Amino acid sequence: MAPLTSIAWVDNQVRILDQTKLPGEIAYNTIVTITEMYDAIKMLKVRGAPAIGVAAGFGLYLGMKDFPDSSSLADFLTLLLKNADFLASSRPTAINLFWALERVKKVVHSQKDVLSVSQLKELLLKEAIAILEEDKAMCQKIGEFGFSLLKEHKTLLTHCNAGGLATAAYGTALSPIYVGLEKGKAFKVYADETRPLLQGSRITALELMEAGVPVTLICDNMAAFVMAQGKIDAVIVGADRITANGDTANKIGTYSVALAAKEHGIPFYVAAPSSTFDTTLESGKEIPIEERGQEEIVNGFGKLTGPEKVPVYNPAFDVTPHRYITAIITEKGVLEPPFTESIATIIS
Amino acid sequence: MAPLTSIAWVDNQVRILDQTKLPGEIAYNTIVTITEMYDAIKMLKVRGAPAIGVAAGFGLYLGMKDFPDSSSLADFLTLLLKNADFLASSRPTAINLFWALERVKKVVHSQKDVLSVSQLKELLLKEAIAILEEDKAMCQKIGEFGFSLLKEHKTLLTHCNAGGLATAAYGTALSPIYVGLEKGKAFKVYADETRPLLQGSRITALELMEAGVPVTLICDNMAAFVMAQGKIDAVIVGADRITANGDTANKIGTYSVALAAKEHGIPFYVAAPSSTFDTTLESGKEIPIEERGQEEIVNGFGKLTGPEKVPVYNPAFDVTPHRYITAIITEKGVLEPPFTESIATIIS
Repeated sequence: MAPLTSIAWVDNQVRILDQTKLPGEIAYNTIVTITEMYDAIKMLKVRGAPAIGVAAGFGLYLGMKDFPDSSSLADFLTLLLKNADFLASSRPTAINLFWALERVKKVVHSQKDVLSVSQLKELLLKEAIAILEEDKAMCQKIGEFGFSLLKEHKTLLTHCNAGGLATAAYGTALSPIYVGLEKGKAFKVYADETRPLLQGSRITALELMEAGVPVTLICDNMAAFVMAQGKIDAVIVGADRITANGDTANKIGTYSVALAAKEHGIPFYVAAPSSTFDTTLESGKEIPIEERGQEEIVNGFGKLTGPEKVPVYNPAFDVTPHRYITAIITEKGVLEPPFTESIATIIS
Repeated sequence: MAPLTSIAWVDNQVRILDQTKLPGEIAYNTIVTITEMYDAIKMLKVRGAPAIGVAAGFGLYLGMKDFPDSSSLADFLTLLLKNADFLASSRPTAINLFWALERVKKVVHSQKDVLSVSQLKELLLKEAIAILEEDKAMCQKIGEFGFSLLKEHKTLLTHCNAGGLATAAYGTALSPIYVGLEKGKAFKVYADETRPLLQGSRITALELMEAGVPVTLICDNMAAFVMAQGKIDAVIVGADRITANGDTANKIGTYSVALAAKEHGIPFYVAAPSSTFDTTLESGKEIPIEERGQEEIVNGFGKLTGPEKVPVYNPAFDVTPHRYITAIITEKGVLEPPFTESIATIIS
């Protein structure tokens, strides 16, 4: 079985996996217009910051590919800016979306005086493919560094989805597992279901099964007991933001897993590209924590599972202090404590 | 607002709350035949070991109340045994069910030579009401001992449902909170939703709201982070079985909460009647852990939330080693470490 792929350039077309249909249906869509790409991002058909960046690059190309070669450069640049603003409005918080749009705009502007409109259109496609390929390379590097670290272990536990479906390729936390498969090493994986939005059961369990990785799904509250039974050799998770001292914001529940890992003497690894580090923040205390709606907890599956008006507290992320983290795996290498020093070596 | 009541004797009738309709609907049913009571237990309209024991007592009475006074004692006793066997077959594992049936049978046999059939029927009702009242008294005692222990705290966290709806009255872990209300002390409570069956959101959050207790619902994986934010003063949970050394089996996820409480220096209390102790077992390692079905995790909300055929591990309980437990609150008093000694003082 081939791993599921969130976004790809296949037969000169952009193909995405519609993740809103998971886990019930594995449906790939061909995206042919910028409006279709905007909708795909907005409706979470494509999700995960790196994958959204890739999608934005292709979205810009799709919005310009039918621009008449005979029209003016000024009109071309005006439409490009308008299209970039349109795509940027699809999801306001995904940092890689803005990063990718800025990157493409800069490249076009650097070449606008030497290339024709027709050549600029080719450049847009080339840049979109470059973003895709760089994302793949990042995943591959994290996978290789992570595999070197994990290869003696048999069973891993992960939380949420930092897998291929959040990127263009192997993902971050799951990449060492896929690299292992390539090298003939089959890790066994326990996946936390990850309440309230169940990225672990809907996405991680699915992509691991599709890739042929032996996966066992558990509820989040079972992780500590599974560790007590001696079933877990190491934990590996992704990250949403890492501060200068190594404190790591990730999906809610990560901190609970880290506490349990410490109590059982199990190594706890974070896998994330260098773009995840925010060294403008000294520690995790400065990271703002997004709180989400009540309905996600009491009415998340089309059925009322708690009192309709019960107050909830629904933080989307938590912060794992650096002292619980064994190492951070990046595409530039493995960072070990003291993190303030090791992080500084890769972030200029 | 009055607290919800799982089972009660009201206007000479047995009234139960249909817990299968929670949280969407608060529906009380009047139970008038033994078959209706059998169905209510089997279909989990009445649940929680103490409440099931009470239900069984009333079930026996309902099955005999229309027995003709003019018929023979022998026929009366034959039907009583047949009815007891019928009720016992409703749920095979609830220990209080068998305990209550045995208790009523013994009382009837001890009086069969001195009372008439008509008087024996009255005795059945009297014994059913006695079981109900004793359960209430047990809850009240646990509530009072627990309140003395907790009264300086503001905010408690609980897991699963060890509340009034698992007993005839105030419950075990939630009883100190209701006793607090009586005394004018309003604890604030964080309730874990308790995957996979969501007893925390469906039942605990509901009964606390109905009683006027300020409750905040969280997903299980948020408990550690809520503790890290300094929001929790103490944890209180129920128990399904406690061994001679104090190791405690309770709903899956309890162990994870206990680890987090220890890490944050928060006291962790267990509340349970003395009937919960199993001193034939030395430690928690000897407690068998029930594993339940895959569909509870991936199809628990009437919607597929994970891959249809994904392997799961679904233990219904976990064991919290005694070293994580600050004290055990029983109807006979508060037990403190070393538990091997304190438990021996109340269990003969």
